[in-house]
Amino acid sequence: MKSVLLRKGRIELDDTPKPEPGPGEVLVRSRACGICGSDLHMVHNAGDFAHIAEHVGMPLPDDFELEIALGHEFVGEIAAFGPETQRQLPVGQRVCSMPFLPTADGNRAIGAEPGVPGAYSEYFLCNESLLIPIADHVSDEAAALVEPLAVGIHAVARSGHDGQQAALVLGCGPIGLAVITALRSAGVETIVAADPVESRRDLASASGATHIVDSAGGEEMDRINEHAAGQPVVIYECVGRPFMLSQIIDRAPQQATCVFVGLCTEDVSILPFIAMQKELDLKFAFYYAPEDFMAAVETISAGGLDASLWVTGKVGIDGVSEAFEVLSAPNEHVKVLVEPWREGGFEVRDG
Amino acid sequence: MKSVLLRKGRIELDDTPKPEPGPGEVLVRSRACGICGSDLHMVHNAGDFAHIAEHVGMPLPDDFELEIALGHEFVGEIAAFGPETQRQLPVGQRVCSMPFLPTADGNRAIGAEPGVPGAYSEYFLCNESLLIPIADHVSDEAAALVEPLAVGIHAVARSGHDGQQAALVLGCGPIGLAVITALRSAGVETIVAADPVESRRDLASASGATHIVDSAGGEEMDRINEHAAGQPVVIYECVGRPFMLSQIIDRAPQQATCVFVGLCTEDVSILPFIAMQKELDLKFAFYYAPEDFMAAVETISAGGLDASLWVTGKVGIDGVSEAFEVLSAPNEHVKVLVEPWREGGFEVRDG
Repeated sequence: MKSVLLRKGRIELDDTPKPEPGPGEVLVRSRACGICGSDLHMVHNAGDFAHIAEHVGMPLPDDFELEIALGHEFVGEIAAFGPETQRQLPVGQRVCSMPFLPTADGNRAIGAEPGVPGAYSEYFLCNESLLIPIADHVSDEAAALVEPLAVGIHAVARSGHDGQQAALVLGCGPIGLAVITALRSAGVETIVAADPVESRRDLASASGATHIVDSAGGEEMDRINEHAAGQPVVIYECVGRPFMLSQIIDRAPQQATCVFVGLCTEDVSILPFIAMQKELDLKFAFYYAPEDFMAAVETISAGGLDASLWVTGKVGIDGVSEAFEVLSAPNEHVKVLVEPWREGGFEVRDG
Repeated sequence: MKSVLLRKGRIELDDTPKPEPGPGEVLVRSRACGICGSDLHMVHNAGDFAHIAEHVGMPLPDDFELEIALGHEFVGEIAAFGPETQRQLPVGQRVCSMPFLPTADGNRAIGAEPGVPGAYSEYFLCNESLLIPIADHVSDEAAALVEPLAVGIHAVARSGHDGQQAALVLGCGPIGLAVITALRSAGVETIVAADPVESRRDLASASGATHIVDSAGGEEMDRINEHAAGQPVVIYECVGRPFMLSQIIDRAPQQATCVFVGLCTEDVSILPFIAMQKELDLKFAFYYAPEDFMAAVETISAGGLDASLWVTGKVGIDGVSEAFEVLSAPNEHVKVLVEPWREGGFEVRDG
């Protein structure tokens, strides 16, 4: 089959054997898979993984070459069942799943670690017990957004947000939009969204932000303080750049809860005394729990997310490398979907 | 009157005018005042304050000399009332107070900022409305421990500890002992306390720690994991050294809540990805709320703290400089009280 590999810091198209489903596993044909910021991060910052491995006392061997079959925000259809499966869903059924493949050595990350096939490629593997059928009325575009929406739902759950506090969302890329969508679903009345890019601010409004602010002006903290009227606020970091942690500690209002959702794999320097004097809560969110993922499926099934706002481009398997180049330069894309079966290169949504 | 000043990084005895109570204020004669780790910190790390001031965009003038009349963990007796006071307590009444002096410019920190008299000196000022009378059966030694105990009570309140989680207290100096005392009062069943000094571990046991561990061996995280049996844990950082933040992030178990109580005024470098992968909650605690301070008074009135365990030395006003020297070198003291009225130098408790 055709497969997409991150190899030596490049996106390469290759021919690999179709994966064989083991006991309890299902072969899934990829229909659509979103390109995630973490995928771009892995392409450009492969060295960070060596740094983290060394930091945790498990240095990588000198000859280690990061090779990952990327793709973890997927919708697919059941192509074949492995041994010891229940087969209650038919072949051809559209499904999504949390991107974890349980093994004897623990959960492996589908499309995000070496040795586990990802969904940019034609076929990949899921565990049957984790499959969630996608209803007929839900488009592939929408179903591919379940995974990033689950990240936002989890971040809001992690925050301990009680619905009364004003929320500030920093960064209106897919993670920021997912957090805004989750906040709106949770009934939060004041959602301030900040981004330096106008088109993203417009999407934030369309997704449920009640107030938007151009973060290029650096006024987002003033704005949230106005709206908070002295109540504690919850700040969601959805940019994922190293300077954000220190900047948020320095600029957050007293007793803010700060939820870090954006990936940051570099060392950062902070002055804890500032966090102490303000009595900040810094909460770090990673992936989601099964209930968050299921809530994302339900939100999308109920029409709670407009996929046409999010999906700004599509690309066939031959064009993934080109798409990564486009997304690595400054751009106004929100979510680009890989459709491995699609003919032709990178196609940008009109309008 | 005789007063103790931190001046140019040294503790100096001086003669200053007795402070004049303003409207709503009371002149208090100091009976006993604990030497706090933050006082030692200010003596030895005065430069950190310039660093913090610069960090928050309010650099100190070049000719700035830190001069503070230290002392904020006090019990005293009412010596005289200023104008516009209610005078419902008699002159001579023993009192304590949160160490804040309300002014038109906001709350000033008694004994911890320039221009506000502190309780190492013979007399200092309190606001009448903040005075809490000390019951006759409570010793001066115990009453002087209200303030540090309030810090521990506040840290436990900040943690959101529900009593079911196992607690790990890192550092068994006064702040660690205060946290242990507060955890015991809150009915927490598993309190693991870690310190490299045996005498402090003994005090932790006597204060309510259910398990102690020599942190010189680096096994405190293994021990808390054993006791947690898979449940999330709450870690209290009561050491206040810069390396602790990074070390806790690196070594804490998954989904731990980490409460930072120890003062840290230096920049520190962390790898946020580790906190993210573990979904840590980092909560910073600073001082206390009025209800925490009142709870500390009540705990001590009810005999919930054995002052004889804590108070390891006493010193008259002439010996404060000597006491700071002793406490600045490695030592096994817990709490040394300044009794400004006492004749003679540094007196170490027997046994």
